[in-house]
Amino acid sequence: MERRRIRVITPVTGDALGDAAFARSLGDVSTDVDLVQVQRGPASIECEFEHSIAVPDTLRLIVEAEREGVDAVVVDCMADPGVRPGRELVQIPVLGPGETSMHVACLLGHRFSIVTTEPRSVPEFENQARVAGLGDRLASVRSVDIPVLDLAADPQALLAALVDESVAAIGADGAHVIVFGCTGMLGFADGVREGLVVRGFPGIPVIDPVPVTVRAAQALLACGLTHSARTWPPAPAKRIDGYEFLTDVLPEGAR
Amino acid sequence: MERRRIRVITPVTGDALGDAAFARSLGDVSTDVDLVQVQRGPASIECEFEHSIAVPDTLRLIVEAEREGVDAVVVDCMADPGVRPGRELVQIPVLGPGETSMHVACLLGHRFSIVTTEPRSVPEFENQARVAGLGDRLASVRSVDIPVLDLAADPQALLAALVDESVAAIGADGAHVIVFGCTGMLGFADGVREGLVVRGFPGIPVIDPVPVTVRAAQALLACGLTHSARTWPPAPAKRIDGYEFLTDVLPEGAR
Amino acid sequence: MERRRIRVITPVTGDALGDAAFARSLGDVSTDVDLVQVQRGPASIECEFEHSIAVPDTLRLIVEAEREGVDAVVVDCMADPGVRPGRELVQIPVLGPGETSMHVACLLGHRFSIVTTEPRSVPEFENQARVAGLGDRLASVRSVDIPVLDLAADPQALLAALVDESVAAIGADGAHVIVFGCTGMLGFADGVREGLVVRGFPGIPVIDPVPVTVRAAQALLACGLTHSARTWPPAPAKRIDGYEFLTDVLPEGAR
Amino acid sequence: MERRRIRVITPVTGDALGDAAFARSLGDVSTDVDLVQVQRGPASIECEFEHSIAVPDTLRLIVEAEREGVDAVVVDCMADPGVRPGRELVQIPVLGPGETSMHVACLLGHRFSIVTTEPRSVPEFENQARVAGLGDRLASVRSVDIPVLDLAADPQALLAALVDESVAAIGADGAHVIVFGCTGMLGFADGVREGLVVRGFPGIPVIDPVPVTVRAAQALLACGLTHSARTWPPAPAKRIDGYEFLTDVLPEGAR
Amino acid sequence: MERRRIRVITPVTGDALGDAAFARSLGDVSTDVDLVQVQRGPASIECEFEHSIAVPDTLRLIVEAEREGVDAVVVDCMADPGVRPGRELVQIPVLGPGETSMHVACLLGHRFSIVTTEPRSVPEFENQARVAGLGDRLASVRSVDIPVLDLAADPQALLAALVDESVAAIGADGAHVIVFGCTGMLGFADGVREGLVVRGFPGIPVIDPVPVTVRAAQALLACGLTHSARTWPPAPAKRIDGYEFLTDVLPEGAR
Amino acid sequence: MERRRIRVITPVTGDALGDAAFARSLGDVSTDVDLVQVQRGPASIECEFEHSIAVPDTLRLIVEAEREGVDAVVVDCMADPGVRPGRELVQIPVLGPGETSMHVACLLGHRFSIVTTEPRSVPEFENQARVAGLGDRLASVRSVDIPVLDLAADPQALLAALVDESVAAIGADGAHVIVFGCTGMLGFADGVREGLVVRGFPGIPVIDPVPVTVRAAQALLACGLTHSARTWPPAPAKRIDGYEFLTDVLPEGAR
Repeated sequence: MERRRIRVITPVTGDALGDAAFARSLGDVSTDVDLVQVQRGPASIECEFEHSIAVPDTLRLIVEAEREGVDAVVVDCMADPGVRPGRELVQIPVLGPGETSMHVACLLGHRFSIVTTEPRSVPEFENQARVAGLGDRLASVRSVDIPVLDLAADPQALLAALVDESVAAIGADGAHVIVFGCTGMLGFADGVREGLVVRGFPGIPVIDPVPVTVRAAQALLACGLTHSARTWPPAPAKRIDGYEFLTDVLPEGAR
Repeated sequence: MERRRIRVITPVTGDALGDAAFARSLGDVSTDVDLVQVQRGPASIECEFEHSIAVPDTLRLIVEAEREGVDAVVVDCMADPGVRPGRELVQIPVLGPGETSMHVACLLGHRFSIVTTEPRSVPEFENQARVAGLGDRLASVRSVDIPVLDLAADPQALLAALVDESVAAIGADGAHVIVFGCTGMLGFADGVREGLVVRGFPGIPVIDPVPVTVRAAQALLACGLTHSARTWPPAPAKRIDGYEFLTDVLPEGAR
Repeated sequence: MERRRIRVITPVTGDALGDAAFARSLGDVSTDVDLVQVQRGPASIECEFEHSIAVPDTLRLIVEAEREGVDAVVVDCMADPGVRPGRELVQIPVLGPGETSMHVACLLGHRFSIVTTEPRSVPEFENQARVAGLGDRLASVRSVDIPVLDLAADPQALLAALVDESVAAIGADGAHVIVFGCTGMLGFADGVREGLVVRGFPGIPVIDPVPVTVRAAQALLACGLTHSARTWPPAPAKRIDGYEFLTDVLPEGAR
Repeated sequence: MERRRIRVITPVTGDALGDAAFARSLGDVSTDVDLVQVQRGPASIECEFEHSIAVPDTLRLIVEAEREGVDAVVVDCMADPGVRPGRELVQIPVLGPGETSMHVACLLGHRFSIVTTEPRSVPEFENQARVAGLGDRLASVRSVDIPVLDLAADPQALLAALVDESVAAIGADGAHVIVFGCTGMLGFADGVREGLVVRGFPGIPVIDPVPVTVRAAQALLACGLTHSARTWPPAPAKRIDGYEFLTDVLPEGAR
Repeated sequence: MERRRIRVITPVTGDALGDAAFARSLGDVSTDVDLVQVQRGPASIECEFEHSIAVPDTLRLIVEAEREGVDAVVVDCMADPGVRPGRELVQIPVLGPGETSMHVACLLGHRFSIVTTEPRSVPEFENQARVAGLGDRLASVRSVDIPVLDLAADPQALLAALVDESVAAIGADGAHVIVFGCTGMLGFADGVREGLVVRGFPGIPVIDPVPVTVRAAQALLACGLTHSARTWPPAPAKRIDGYEFLTDVLPEGAR
Repeated sequence: MERRRIRVITPVTGDALGDAAFARSLGDVSTDVDLVQVQRGPASIECEFEHSIAVPDTLRLIVEAEREGVDAVVVDCMADPGVRPGRELVQIPVLGPGETSMHVACLLGHRFSIVTTEPRSVPEFENQARVAGLGDRLASVRSVDIPVLDLAADPQALLAALVDESVAAIGADGAHVIVFGCTGMLGFADGVREGLVVRGFPGIPVIDPVPVTVRAAQALLACGLTHSARTWPPAPAKRIDGYEFLTDVLPEGAR
């Protein structure tokens, strides 16, 4: 079996060094994983405005990935910016950790809760779940009330807050599975799982979205599956003003 | 009562001359309506990719509208590009004809169908309805199979196709109200309504989305209502790279 | 543009003097608003029985309104008594504040709560939301536990209770928009909005149902829209015993 | 076990002689069944207007039934007029064939279709199913296109039409159970069931709503169950104008 | 009318003596009720594993009941083990108290709660409600936290716990009807209903599932109704290894 | 990374030789895949009865797999027999191709259809989708009308029928992704995909359930995830009669 390449695309300009190392570690005997980052857009994504302006350069990176022979792309943000429009520009699988994690959570337990950074994200996650058809399986969206760019400042405080909110999600909201609501919580799943054991909730799956989504991409590649051309037909060719950084790399059809 | 100003923002660069005249005609004794158009983005919006790159310059126009004292904004595309993120940047009402028309349709009849340009838009409209909670009231999404930029080419053919698809929506899908799925169908509502009478379906409301949404904006202004700061709190201040045309006009908080 | 007439129909026999003055104040340069009241029925509507017996005389007033050249009718009760059957008797728009307010609330925020008079109304509001397809967007129904006919007794107490329940709706139930559950709460929206600011919840839309519904009626009139004859075809002609006050004014077809 | 009395209340003034005989035949060794009919209201119920004006006198009969020692009441119309408000006036079970038949149909098969008289009833049945929570189990609503008052004119034609629509409901809409949409189709269940065998669909339950609902009332009586006072608390005492025929018989609390 | 026979089948091997006596007491002038019990399977059913291994011998008893001329079967467990597959093996009605009680609860009030033995059953009840289409009418699933086999140990403690959880279901979750989540709670309905009166909640229907389901079976028999052959066609004839105790009694077609 | 073992468990006694070879071929540089088959149960699973009696011996094989150090189990039938109860008996992931394929389909397109063997399976698949929360994303269930045990008889006919039904699912029902409804259709995905290209539907993902589920199991193993102990706590210890073949291998806790 020839080696496969999966690329993690970070749609924000904030520091993602740790993520890059982690991404590489997700490679295995048959897959290489690398990480690239947008040059245009917000430092972090915490609202629909930031989501919007993260998309164009993410699309450029998605198109370039396919051109460079990458086999699948994972966008490194739970809001899944660029995932759906990206599928109109390339034929390789483009996965978002938001959509993917919710479906994987459903394979593991009755209801899941998302524990995210700030309360303002509740509507977006609930809308994502509605679009996925999974509104009925989402127990709750909770937040640690720490902005994305401060997540790395105090790992102990973050871990404690993640455990507290997960305990509340399980005890009060009926969650059976926990999904991190921000890819900046990378690497905390084991700590939360152990913290939940201490708090009396053993055996709770805790989903760290990017690794889970990279593994899902590997699974799709192994099956030879990609997104439906009926849902995301190639974008039509058309005049576009003002996005040369993106249009210059677009496939023939969409330029 | 002081005069109010409502601005229609066309998020595409294609010709919108007719729309501008029409927009002005929506003004009345207490309201002026004007229309502006993006300088960056696609010539028309027919897919999620085009939707994505229409947003940033639409957001600029939304912010500029508020700065210029405009009282409410209507985005001139059924995909509602920029509507939700725009609500994080301004405090005046920002309305999309997609969301607004669907709710108005529900006030007028049991189920509604959307008749749009091309079949590829079905998933986006169904997802809009899911987010609105109205999936159960959407009878169907049908299309005349004419690209947006060709809509104006043959008005007779467009009218005939709109009537045909509306008849099918009513007869086969159980629609009681028709909503146009593209703001480029502006002005065809009377013709379709009359065509439906001829075809044996009198008394069917036909919603021409932009005028209906401008009227809804007038109603909200008269009530002193705008969007909830709980759903769309102001975007946080943060470093943003590469969108000077937009960030230069952002309100203090979001720059 | 010729002047338009909108009529508010109060379906209860209790004192509505204040409402009449308020209704007139909703008129503007192009619209006159007046208010009439039933002669038969309950003093107030707090249960399905009272709802039932409010309907026949409300229907008489709806039919008379159309006969007198009124352009649109708004029924002055959140249970929307007579609204749906009324649409079978006239061709002018007949709007209910229950249905209309719920759809307007959805245009303004992620989820809404209804704050009503008494707990016994919860099922009816939840059923209204189910019929509207909006069950998923209704955060909760709360009540101030004051009977309708006592609402006017102590305005300070009413305001305080409305703010308390709105705070609970936002904080505990996830509401982003507040809708009054009784048209007898007319005029309290500004007070509640300000009370919410004091309690730490700025920017929450508070919907006062009758004014919002009158504005919606103005918008529909401006668009030339009325309800679908497919959902509410004219009532068939048929023998009816015992409702001469109503049948004497019925249109030819329905007598 | 003492004998029980169940009363069928016909909410229309049209001829119900056959129904009365049939009702009596539903009695058994432990239950007597009788039938009474309103004096005020429409000759038949085919729209929301007629439904509305059938309610007040139906409520009178419900109250009188309890006063006379009747143990349970069944309203003889699929629109369930007066059923919910009636539960606020009496403590004996008040059942509607619409609601009851839909739940019984769910005990018998995967999805059910309602075959009713005229297409205009589709929205009301779909709304009933939404309120019952059974929208997802309703395969379709079909109609024989015969007005209620003409149902008895040509029994052969009615039977043929019922079989035709049932075949379509099964073959095209995926129905596994058929529910008659009008209590005027009384007595046709066996004929339809046999007709379906001939057409290649053996073993399809066909629900004749009134007998099924009378049997459900017997079951509730045998269990000592009645409707919840939490959903339908007694109507409050209050001034009511103009319905002496009803208010004169109301229980103390509700007058 | 000839006498009818209804058989309650207890799908567990634990002591069911009290149930047998109770079952007999459900007979009336026209119906005999008896109770039989499986010889193979678990002592009680508290998880999906135990549910699974209760099914085969329950199916044997269902088939034998039909062979012996029994007219309808009720399976004595809220998980409804064997009910759906049993309908493929016989033509007499096979009813489960889980499915039946949920539909009867819906006839009696706005929302119902299930009060069961242990928290681990929550997912199964919620899934049952989803399949029934009644997820929206299920207020909550609560548990007394007593294993099935200990239910009989301390009736006073059980009653107190049932009342406590019912109070919480009504007060906190919005339940209007209570359904017991275990058929081992047989006979406690009156006590809980009275306990609720004392706690301030009069008029709450409390559903004791087996008697209610036996009454529902009587009602179906009186109507001549059984399950749809379209949902549960007879099982096809096929080689089966290892279940001689069951296959030896199977009808011709399914052996 | 140490080698992982995944076991496919065929819950039927019919010939599965081809499947075993195929299962082995799903192994890769880091995973071995083998296949075992029940000794007790039906030759194939086409109804709920056969599903029921396939479970006990499938559970034995699940327990034995964990004992033998297998890392994950995939049950080889779209009805997912034994999957949920099996999760109460072991801690390794137990995946069913029904549940897994539906979630994977949702990652690939807007709506999916299941193309299965016989029409009688429609209710079971719809119920599976309801439990998964995916009822809204299931476009339809269609069947080739060939019994499971005849699938292998004429591969050309099967392929042609699969393509025909897939074309209908896409064209008439709005499917964007096809899922095989029987694991006996193993190996036909490429053929159907190509057949769809010929028929004018390129780019449609076709999901062959067992390989996709094995890949999903590999992904979960790579992530260190297994099912939630909150949804499926270990089965309690309890007396069980008559299933020595299974109880003899049960873990301590559940015996």
